[in-house]
Amino acid sequence: MRDCTADPEEVDALLVANMSSGEFEGRSGIANALVSELALEPAFASKVENTSGSGGAAFLWGWSAVASGMYDLVLVTGGEVMTVVSREEATEIIASLTHPVEYAQGISLPGYAGLMARAYLERYSVPREALAHVAVKNHYNGARNPKAQFQREVTLEKVLESPMIADPLRLYDYCPITDGAAAVLLCPLERANSFTAEPVGVKGIAGATDTLVVHERDDLTAMKAVRIAAEAAYAMSNLGPDEVDVAEVHDMATILEVVQTEELGFFPRGEGWRAAMEGVTALEGPKPVNTSGGLKAKGHPLGATGVAQIAEVTSQLQGRAGDRQVDATVGLTCNVAGFGNNVIVTVLGVTP
Amino acid sequence: MRDCTADPEEVDALLVANMSSGEFEGRSGIANALVSELALEPAFASKVENTSGSGGAAFLWGWSAVASGMYDLVLVTGGEVMTVVSREEATEIIASLTHPVEYAQGISLPGYAGLMARAYLERYSVPREALAHVAVKNHYNGARNPKAQFQREVTLEKVLESPMIADPLRLYDYCPITDGAAAVLLCPLERANSFTAEPVGVKGIAGATDTLVVHERDDLTAMKAVRIAAEAAYAMSNLGPDEVDVAEVHDMATILEVVQTEELGFFPRGEGWRAAMEGVTALEGPKPVNTSGGLKAKGHPLGATGVAQIAEVTSQLQGRAGDRQVDATVGLTCNVAGFGNNVIVTVLGVTP
Repeated sequence: MRDCTADPEEVDALLVANMSSGEFEGRSGIANALVSELALEPAFASKVENTSGSGGAAFLWGWSAVASGMYDLVLVTGGEVMTVVSREEATEIIASLTHPVEYAQGISLPGYAGLMARAYLERYSVPREALAHVAVKNHYNGARNPKAQFQREVTLEKVLESPMIADPLRLYDYCPITDGAAAVLLCPLERANSFTAEPVGVKGIAGATDTLVVHERDDLTAMKAVRIAAEAAYAMSNLGPDEVDVAEVHDMATILEVVQTEELGFFPRGEGWRAAMEGVTALEGPKPVNTSGGLKAKGHPLGATGVAQIAEVTSQLQGRAGDRQVDATVGLTCNVAGFGNNVIVTVLGVTP
Repeated sequence: MRDCTADPEEVDALLVANMSSGEFEGRSGIANALVSELALEPAFASKVENTSGSGGAAFLWGWSAVASGMYDLVLVTGGEVMTVVSREEATEIIASLTHPVEYAQGISLPGYAGLMARAYLERYSVPREALAHVAVKNHYNGARNPKAQFQREVTLEKVLESPMIADPLRLYDYCPITDGAAAVLLCPLERANSFTAEPVGVKGIAGATDTLVVHERDDLTAMKAVRIAAEAAYAMSNLGPDEVDVAEVHDMATILEVVQTEELGFFPRGEGWRAAMEGVTALEGPKPVNTSGGLKAKGHPLGATGVAQIAEVTSQLQGRAGDRQVDATVGLTCNVAGFGNNVIVTVLGVTP
């Protein structure tokens, strides 16, 4: 609110993206708590939940309310407090999003990622260390982000020698458990200049779902919902993957960043790993991905993540990204719920 | 979907209103589960949570997405499974929406209602049995609703002799714990005739919040957010309270129906009890309220309630309400989150 010099009385509605405040903290009704804490009453408030895609979903519904003319100013926030429970409990809470039959077999989100990584490495004859490069890159970026959970670099060796979690993926292939929050303010484009000198426009936005049950999908090395959402968001924006200068994608595990960069059209199928390995997606590369440090190093507070991705790309487009600034006029975010169950892609751009 | 002969492939998005599937059932990500269960992929899906006002909130965000042109067909659903835990656990889960300081003092939602009833009865010199008439009326209506939880009438004596819960309110002044679900399909008005011969239009819709902490409010016998939301919904619809033929309001406790009928402008402040006592709000009266049986007799599956209210008013406007049919061309719903913390009012009407 301070950043965009908005008057609280002007806010028409508030959305808070959150997965499981009840399970983590024993608190529900957090939209009412937040609107009251910020003294925004009588602004309407709701929580949007879409597991790890809650932030992107809240942004989509908030955007459509502004687009409809229903509301002018919508404050889209997201947050999660996860470290108040043990790691085992946190894993259990997150796994409650899977199909009960799959859940009963003991599969968890990190487990799915291991299966995908194994299939991907085999199919495309990929050296295992290619995935580790994603972790090294994202830690490098996180070291340049004062809001990242891990502000330190790691070596390829450290990633490859970290404890095995779900073969072939190791501890440093995965995002951590995080407390965090993020917020962005949505308004009609014609009013944006009254809040900031560097307004960023929503050029395209779309969401798509895939089957809840992972084994019902055609291809374990694909993320169909990412492709569908991206194609719709590109169509809406009249922009394509080649025009995206910077992107935040949902690297819950290193393999997921690689596959998303393929499904988003940045690289051909089976080639995303090479881009990661050769520095194409590095901060200094031609297609920087996860400049924030990504879920890997910036952290993954479930409900906040989708909003934080938009905040990072917005900072890049505004030229306010500090030590991790890249040259960008078009940015993209890809927020994933579950294991590709539900995806929201936004295309953001500098406005004239 | 069968009722409106919609093709699943046409559905663009699904919203599910739900408060606490994680706490009640240990399941999260229910929007993804539902979209997959209905085989609606790749339709976008999200859960909207606004405690007991989740249904109204989901409807509001779904409506704005259709109004924006983002989506054509949005399936708005709501549901809650509550009876899988003990009554004590259910009360605890619901109470987790209150402010932690108030919660720590042992106040619960039924407790707030007792305080409001006591203040209201004293201020307006109201006979205690006036409130009991609301329960008798709603059970009478529920006895005519094949989907109600309690399909039987009760006597005034039975209500007044039921166990004390929060003085002066007794067991029969309160809604029960319920499992249930509801769904409505939203589409642009110009397409509605292809789905039903009796389309119902959204004439006005608005949401508003009040302070989370109840003692910070000006008046314990008022529901400020109901008044603010109603005034906005009336303004949008170019209709007023006198034009409303039928209404579903949020009778979590009998006193809340009385106060809401005042805040909605149906009756002056301090006069709502008389309307209930004199049969004005009865099925056969001039201003029928809660023809479904209300939360009291139809039941209160938290997340479903706001959607079920809209489904009931829609049935009335379509002339499909069976034994509880009233003469109506304009209807209203009032869905309340928490203890008046957050309110969604919709004005629905027969379309030409």
